[in-house]
Amino acid sequence: MSHQEIAPPPRLLMGPGPISADPRVLRAMAAPLVGQFDPFMTTTMNEVMGLYRTVFDTANEQTFLVDGTSRAGIEAALVSLVEPGDRVLVPVFGRFGHLLAEIAGRCGAEVHTIEVPWGQVFAPEAIEDAVRAVRPKVLACVQGDTSTTMCQPLAEIGAICREHDVLLYCDATASLGGNEFRTDAWGIDIATAGLQKCLGGPSGSAPITISPRAVEMIGARRHVEAGLREIPGGEDVDAARGRVIASNYFDLAMVMDYWGPRRLNHHTEATSMLYAARESARLLVTEGVDTAVARHERHGRAMLDGVRGLGLGVFGDVAHKMSNVVAVEIPEALGAAGGDAVRGSLLDDFGIEIGTSFGPLHGKVWRIGTMGFNARKDAVLTTLAALEQVLRAHGVAVPPGGGVAAAQEVYA
Amino acid sequence: MSHQEIAPPPRLLMGPGPISADPRVLRAMAAPLVGQFDPFMTTTMNEVMGLYRTVFDTANEQTFLVDGTSRAGIEAALVSLVEPGDRVLVPVFGRFGHLLAEIAGRCGAEVHTIEVPWGQVFAPEAIEDAVRAVRPKVLACVQGDTSTTMCQPLAEIGAICREHDVLLYCDATASLGGNEFRTDAWGIDIATAGLQKCLGGPSGSAPITISPRAVEMIGARRHVEAGLREIPGGEDVDAARGRVIASNYFDLAMVMDYWGPRRLNHHTEATSMLYAARESARLLVTEGVDTAVARHERHGRAMLDGVRGLGLGVFGDVAHKMSNVVAVEIPEALGAAGGDAVRGSLLDDFGIEIGTSFGPLHGKVWRIGTMGFNARKDAVLTTLAALEQVLRAHGVAVPPGGGVAAAQEVYA
Repeated sequence: MSHQEIAPPPRLLMGPGPISADPRVLRAMAAPLVGQFDPFMTTTMNEVMGLYRTVFDTANEQTFLVDGTSRAGIEAALVSLVEPGDRVLVPVFGRFGHLLAEIAGRCGAEVHTIEVPWGQVFAPEAIEDAVRAVRPKVLACVQGDTSTTMCQPLAEIGAICREHDVLLYCDATASLGGNEFRTDAWGIDIATAGLQKCLGGPSGSAPITISPRAVEMIGARRHVEAGLREIPGGEDVDAARGRVIASNYFDLAMVMDYWGPRRLNHHTEATSMLYAARESARLLVTEGVDTAVARHERHGRAMLDGVRGLGLGVFGDVAHKMSNVVAVEIPEALGAAGGDAVRGSLLDDFGIEIGTSFGPLHGKVWRIGTMGFNARKDAVLTTLAALEQVLRAHGVAVPPGGGVAAAQEVYA
Repeated sequence: MSHQEIAPPPRLLMGPGPISADPRVLRAMAAPLVGQFDPFMTTTMNEVMGLYRTVFDTANEQTFLVDGTSRAGIEAALVSLVEPGDRVLVPVFGRFGHLLAEIAGRCGAEVHTIEVPWGQVFAPEAIEDAVRAVRPKVLACVQGDTSTTMCQPLAEIGAICREHDVLLYCDATASLGGNEFRTDAWGIDIATAGLQKCLGGPSGSAPITISPRAVEMIGARRHVEAGLREIPGGEDVDAARGRVIASNYFDLAMVMDYWGPRRLNHHTEATSMLYAARESARLLVTEGVDTAVARHERHGRAMLDGVRGLGLGVFGDVAHKMSNVVAVEIPEALGAAGGDAVRGSLLDDFGIEIGTSFGPLHGKVWRIGTMGFNARKDAVLTTLAALEQVLRAHGVAVPPGGGVAAAQEVYA
């Protein structure tokens, strides 16, 4: 077996994520490593904390990275909050709501779900009714669920949770940086994300922010692991007050002691991913988070109008669509396997990836993203131009230039 | 807050890891991303599986990456093997043995430990006696524990485990690639590692290999998560036979379905870390694993003789030392804070990092590594030359040129 250096084919990733990373983020990962407690390392960790406070729009001291994919961030949040037997309420409006319920269940929670049909979001009253009925310890909610493209309005949910003394966890993986997100103003206790969507980086690092009251609750479950208790200053935090968190790797009390001034050894920070996360946030903060959100709205609108300009239908309640992804109805004329054939032609002939779908939408819609580095005019127009060609080649009648023209009107 | 592009200071990382990554591994991470199910992606995942079979010296089909640091690999192995109430036996000969016990405990195991003083390893008979007494489901053992620099001989442990129907898990994080490791010949059921030691990469990806009998046991606990059951072919594996694994992220049954031909969606693979893991293994396999082990032995010997040539003592049972790290006794003449002062001067004046120590060795030894990309003659000689200068500047009488000369004899 003889292998060469990695040489990926050029791809324009216009699916629901991961998307093409900003070259500057990729380049940051090639920077040399430093030691785990090098002054440069701890300074960089502190910078990252500051940058993600801006990204999450929060004053939360405890804002850092979980070393894993966005799913690792979700699990770290839930396993650190939830003790076995706790009630967790999950409003499910797509696949990733099911995932939150699944993970909460593995943490031993008594999980309650409410559901709306795919393509819709919840009215705040529906969530409040469920909170009254279930009286959960934690409400766990996705903001943007790429499986349906819906974006759950959250502005009123935090107040509901505070009134009923419920902790609010939000999975902002697919939405953060491309849709408005206000951790503090909306009263969110823990939010987590990933780099591979609107942040324009690779998967593998999960930014997280934790409110003071959630920090207090997690801190009450703090244990210092054997082998570290001898370190000066380590022993006094080993008073086991709450039930030990069922994961070592995802024990946010320990991870906070690692990111905080104590610098208690936990995992070995994934330095290259730290650099990537720093660069993703640095670019976003330099652009301005609100400006980036507006950029996603603009290019998302261009893609939406563009696919409609090709005569294609759009799935779901478009008024509540995330700005960064659209679910495009696969024309019936394409037949059962036609959706995948179109995706294959786009990839093979144009190097452009668009997404397939899960569950009830499988085979019914494509998901086209405009996010992060790829929330750009040339990416949108190129995708629409290629899609027009491929649809025509597969026998779908499409108006010549209709997609690009409709998008150009948005840009005019 | 205005930040610039990341610009780490130049460092020669000669501690117990993380160490300076091979520039080729860093460069691989700058390669562009492809989609999660792109043919290039799945081909690359398969290549990585093949490469790590060579690294682990195994025929195990189930050889892949856990997306997280080496600690994530440990937890994935243990949480997937251990059901609450299972007995786990851990031979502890340093800090990372305590970590295995800690993680097993969080999985709900009834944890039993045996211990030897730091600086020693176990005789196989001592482990067999404990296996007879405890009758564990799993024996969890570190191969190389950087906290003491000891390398536990494993060749006879696998046979003991088979005889007593015990699963053998081995944490090879610090040793793999720099010390002999034979997954199949030694009868190891699961081994995990990281990139940041002898593999010459960054922290953040955990290679793992799983024997067929461990695969069978984990497979018996397979569950398909809600939201995926509708996918054709997904439903038939949802027969809950064993107790559900207490983690979603670390559920190796699901991770195997993602890496395997089913390609069932789980996490979004951390593509850049996949590229890094591929390049780390590619370089190692191209060099030849046995050749790399011999290289670590040679440069480790040069560093060992070199520090002795400076008149410094070495901690522990040197006959059982890992080849890639040495624990150097801090001269008493330096006083209580002198160890850290020497480390500070090495870092500030020479850009060289050596390691401090944990627990009972804290303040007593430095740990100096020669591993991965830094298992090189120039790195060894530069470190010895700088250490001589710094020791002298701190008032320690050292033979001029004694360290470098002793190392050069090894190279002669």
